[in-house]
Amino acid sequence: MKQALHTLRVRTTGQDLYDITQPIGGWAGQQGIDTGLLTIWCRHTSASLIVQENADPDVRADLLDFFRRVVPEGSQYRHAVEGPDDMPAHIKAALTQSSLSIPLQHGAPLLGAWQAVYLFEHRTEPQMRSICLHVIGF
Amino acid sequence: MKQALHTLRVRTTGQDLYDITQPIGGWAGQQGIDTGLLTIWCRHTSASLIVQENADPDVRADLLDFFRRVVPEGSQYRHAVEGPDDMPAHIKAALTQSSLSIPLQHGAPLLGAWQAVYLFEHRTEPQMRSICLHVIGF
Amino acid sequence: MKQALHTLRVRTTGQDLYDITQPIGGWAGQQGIDTGLLTIWCRHTSASLIVQENADPDVRADLLDFFRRVVPEGSQYRHAVEGPDDMPAHIKAALTQSSLSIPLQHGAPLLGAWQAVYLFEHRTEPQMRSICLHVIGF
Repeated sequence: MKQALHTLRVRTTGQDLYDITQPIGGWAGQQGIDTGLLTIWCRHTSASLIVQENADPDVRADLLDFFRRVVPEGSQYRHAVEGPDDMPAHIKAALTQSSLSIPLQHGAPLLGAWQAVYLFEHRTEPQMRSICLHVIGF
Repeated sequence: MKQALHTLRVRTTGQDLYDITQPIGGWAGQQGIDTGLLTIWCRHTSASLIVQENADPDVRADLLDFFRRVVPEGSQYRHAVEGPDDMPAHIKAALTQSSLSIPLQHGAPLLGAWQAVYLFEHRTEPQMRSICLHVIGF
Repeated sequence: MKQALHTLRVRTTGQDLYDITQPIGGWAGQQGIDTGLLTIWCRHTSASLIVQENADPDVRADLLDFFRRVVPEGSQYRHAVEGPDDMPAHIKAALTQSSLSIPLQHGAPLLGAWQAVYLFEHRTEPQMRSICLHVIGF
């Protein structure tokens, strides 16, 4: 049984979904583990993880629209000192996921045919994000 | 330390919650692992995982109503080529969970008294869904 | 490779976020594991897990407001026998998380600078909640 730990850094430039499927799968495939469990942890409270279709870019645009409609910016929040996008960012992060755990087979995450893993950035200004990766197996 | 990997196939017939607690627990209990970690991964972006009360069927009906109200079908989506239920399906999947990790004791997932694990199907047409199961422990 | 299992009990007194970062990290740090994976499982369907900013209490108040607005109490639910807060509780639990998996380094969960792990209580009356903790690594 082996394990490995890594931090992936992702530069973001505004509210969007950033595809991290390739760097995650690439790192996992280099750890000498055939079968196991890959865990992805987002170390932020204004960015999160989301698994979505990677085929049609319209899906990403519709997702952004939905979250902006349900969690609008505005004057309704007490927490406003970090900007109008900060409290909506915390809520959007709460509605999506902080961690994902994906089984590995033949060294690759068992994603479905249309699945991609995205970092979901909820802030407007550019950010440097840290994503922890852990794999265990043999 | 041992591990095992399995794919569970679930046939769905419309938007509903499908109880997968028994096949998941049954498979986990056959792996010769007393204490460990069970991970469930849904390989789709228009179906997801949800943990809910298994006692009153009204809970499932109210959940379906809620998600249909907050994520309505309609003409507001760019992504429409796969049918009016497809983009709402992606959003509902984003709002629920792609993976669940449940500790095992005495070979059984440590679910609470009222907890059941459901596959949450968001599409209208019948589907065959794949759920990956991974267990590690001893 | 080692593992350990523990149940954390948390007394709640109404709808709020209860910071469980310290007892979780404290227990994990005592298991003699340097690098590994910590999993947190909430054994309830009317309470859940959420990762949020621990700096400004206004964030917690805004989160509670948001979930009460999107999932209001009222007469719209079939499932009403357990009180007006019960069905909204199930929906709020569905929108947040049942499990979290956090990599460990130097015996500590790799939380970001502003991250705290909260038990999100959705019921009005006092409750005793059970949170399962599992750690694996070496």
